[in-house]
Amino acid sequence: MKMTLDRPQLISLAAGFTDDLSLPVEQTRELLSEILANPKLARATLQYGSTIGDARLRKLTAERLLKQDERNSRKLYSPERLLITHGSQQLLYLLTECLCDAGDIVLVEDPTYFVYLGIVQSHGLKTRGVPLEVDGLDLKALERILESLKRSGTLRRLKMLYLVSYFQNPSAVTTSFAKKAGALELLRRYERFAGHPIYLLEDAAYRELRFGREEVTSALAAPGGAERVLYAGTYSKPFATGIRVGYGVLPEPILEVVLRVKGNHDFGTSNLLQQVLAGALSSHRYDEHISMLQRRYAQKAQVMTDALKEEFPTSVQWRQPEGGLYVWARLPAGAKTGAQSKIFKETFARDVLYVPGELCYANDTSRRKPQNEMRLSFGSASEKNIRKGIARLGAILCENLT
Amino acid sequence: MKMTLDRPQLISLAAGFTDDLSLPVEQTRELLSEILANPKLARATLQYGSTIGDARLRKLTAERLLKQDERNSRKLYSPERLLITHGSQQLLYLLTECLCDAGDIVLVEDPTYFVYLGIVQSHGLKTRGVPLEVDGLDLKALERILESLKRSGTLRRLKMLYLVSYFQNPSAVTTSFAKKAGALELLRRYERFAGHPIYLLEDAAYRELRFGREEVTSALAAPGGAERVLYAGTYSKPFATGIRVGYGVLPEPILEVVLRVKGNHDFGTSNLLQQVLAGALSSHRYDEHISMLQRRYAQKAQVMTDALKEEFPTSVQWRQPEGGLYVWARLPAGAKTGAQSKIFKETFARDVLYVPGELCYANDTSRRKPQNEMRLSFGSASEKNIRKGIARLGAILCENLT
Repeated sequence: MKMTLDRPQLISLAAGFTDDLSLPVEQTRELLSEILANPKLARATLQYGSTIGDARLRKLTAERLLKQDERNSRKLYSPERLLITHGSQQLLYLLTECLCDAGDIVLVEDPTYFVYLGIVQSHGLKTRGVPLEVDGLDLKALERILESLKRSGTLRRLKMLYLVSYFQNPSAVTTSFAKKAGALELLRRYERFAGHPIYLLEDAAYRELRFGREEVTSALAAPGGAERVLYAGTYSKPFATGIRVGYGVLPEPILEVVLRVKGNHDFGTSNLLQQVLAGALSSHRYDEHISMLQRRYAQKAQVMTDALKEEFPTSVQWRQPEGGLYVWARLPAGAKTGAQSKIFKETFARDVLYVPGELCYANDTSRRKPQNEMRLSFGSASEKNIRKGIARLGAILCENLT
Repeated sequence: MKMTLDRPQLISLAAGFTDDLSLPVEQTRELLSEILANPKLARATLQYGSTIGDARLRKLTAERLLKQDERNSRKLYSPERLLITHGSQQLLYLLTECLCDAGDIVLVEDPTYFVYLGIVQSHGLKTRGVPLEVDGLDLKALERILESLKRSGTLRRLKMLYLVSYFQNPSAVTTSFAKKAGALELLRRYERFAGHPIYLLEDAAYRELRFGREEVTSALAAPGGAERVLYAGTYSKPFATGIRVGYGVLPEPILEVVLRVKGNHDFGTSNLLQQVLAGALSSHRYDEHISMLQRRYAQKAQVMTDALKEEFPTSVQWRQPEGGLYVWARLPAGAKTGAQSKIFKETFARDVLYVPGELCYANDTSRRKPQNEMRLSFGSASEKNIRKGIARLGAILCENLT
């Protein structure tokens, strides 16, 4: 991010920023003006709230989730199980802080969201990577890992499986509902050897940035989901990243602990931000904005993949994304994309930046980190810059891969 | 807080909420409308920023602090040493998380801010309480504690001294500059026995809520302040508690660590909130609001102390506050104010709530927690309710203390 801000001519295909031109400026202005014109609401908005978050926003969020999941369980999707956080990032941190002790193990996807790896490392946790297939987690591999932890007597250190389940950052893979249920079932089966619950942390950050496929139900609705799924959602990416509001749906005992720690962290998320979201959700504005955003990202994804078809050597593999902000590209075996590689340096010298794929792999000594991948984001760059960036990168790849 | 929200007839002299009627509704509306009418600024406001915080807000904050401290050191008050946080609460948490390991020792005031004690406990830290005098820390007592830690070989576990230096929560005491400098000098002297830096964490949360005395310079300006003072400030209390923006001025090596952890916590504080404050500070609005707020709290403090004179038995000791939100009242030895006490229960039954003083004392086995004190807040209650609440409480005290 910093690199992008300091070097304006840089075409960043790296940043996880969202599209600047689609930010809901007018909607936010209207919402804030409405909120602050109502004296009672205005004062509530500018005053402390409760640590768990605004009751109206929690209710609206629970209802939205219930509808998205097409389920009928008011209990599972109760506002009582839901808290508001300062972005979903804060929830990932809180959950990891509350559930894990140094030396514990967290399973992550191979590859996974690299900022989460930072959280994991800062808590002194160990990680194992579970390979991804086109429809999400490789369940056979998950089972092998659980079995090996059981055999080595370290299953008791396993606390959770972290899953970025929708249009994953970085791979754009969506995990099917069947696979989420399957993973949950596997975790439950191994719990008796662990001696404690093993949670499935479902990070649904990109869920609403969907443009090319039907909705996938969350793991909450799978058997055991009420007791074992920690669901992390966010309004930052789908609405405005400058308005940091995320939320979590958690089993009651976990919610209680997380609230206590959140009280220590920040005393509750800013009411002003929460009211903007509550206003957007309860009016037509949020849904309209999402529809626009989905069209916009679909278009930008198309621009990127058209350029990839045109400019990249055919030896580079990638898939058409169905949502999210990313295309994941795999170069032939042996090629290197890391920050010290010729390809990265040449690309950066031509003012284009991507995320080296190896940054997205957990430290896991049981396998080598692939070094031949890259994450390309169509989120923040303009269509023109996407074309230009991919053309430059493509030229460098053509030169280096032959 | 929850009690207050759930029982509307309750007169809360307990909550640390600020005054509802003085919230800057109109100013915030104007500011947001201005920000969001400017397309470039609007987009920056609704987009991710950097973890350290908005450059303009940091510059404005550094300048304000320099002016408040009446110092001339651009280096000490450089925006480069300053980060923005989600309320100062987040900074207290981050610093404690970064600097302390379980089993370490933190010195706090006797009494101190009870939410900070929650942070300390959640990190498994030990605490020692340093008694307060009218002008702040009892330096002789501080020296005795340092000496005893040295003798017992536990000085190497001492990481910092936490000081709520302006109109302290809960005691309303302000620590003089001379005492801050004295404390810093003592800590420095014992560092060589500790084998590492011992920091002074200056929590200046109430600094701007000043109405009855001259400005006191921060510990930053004392000898060694640049290297050893961690200064935590906030805009939440002086502007709007629903807009959670705090800041820290930190020595460079600490800043670096805190930024890394803050990146994991939340990826940076909401840009929208930061822009509101930057706009308020750079216009006349912030200063005007503060002036109004100071007059308002002075008036409410006067209403409370007038009622105290009228209604409380003369055996109860308290002082006229010069800032902040609190009056600290000490009942005669032997009287009990705790949550299980007759006085607390009778008061609560009459729909009045105060904070039992003993909650504000750290666990420190070297002394008993006083049980005969209470914190009375004139922050959120109306003048009418302050009078009514103090009258009811006074009647109960008159009955129980004779």
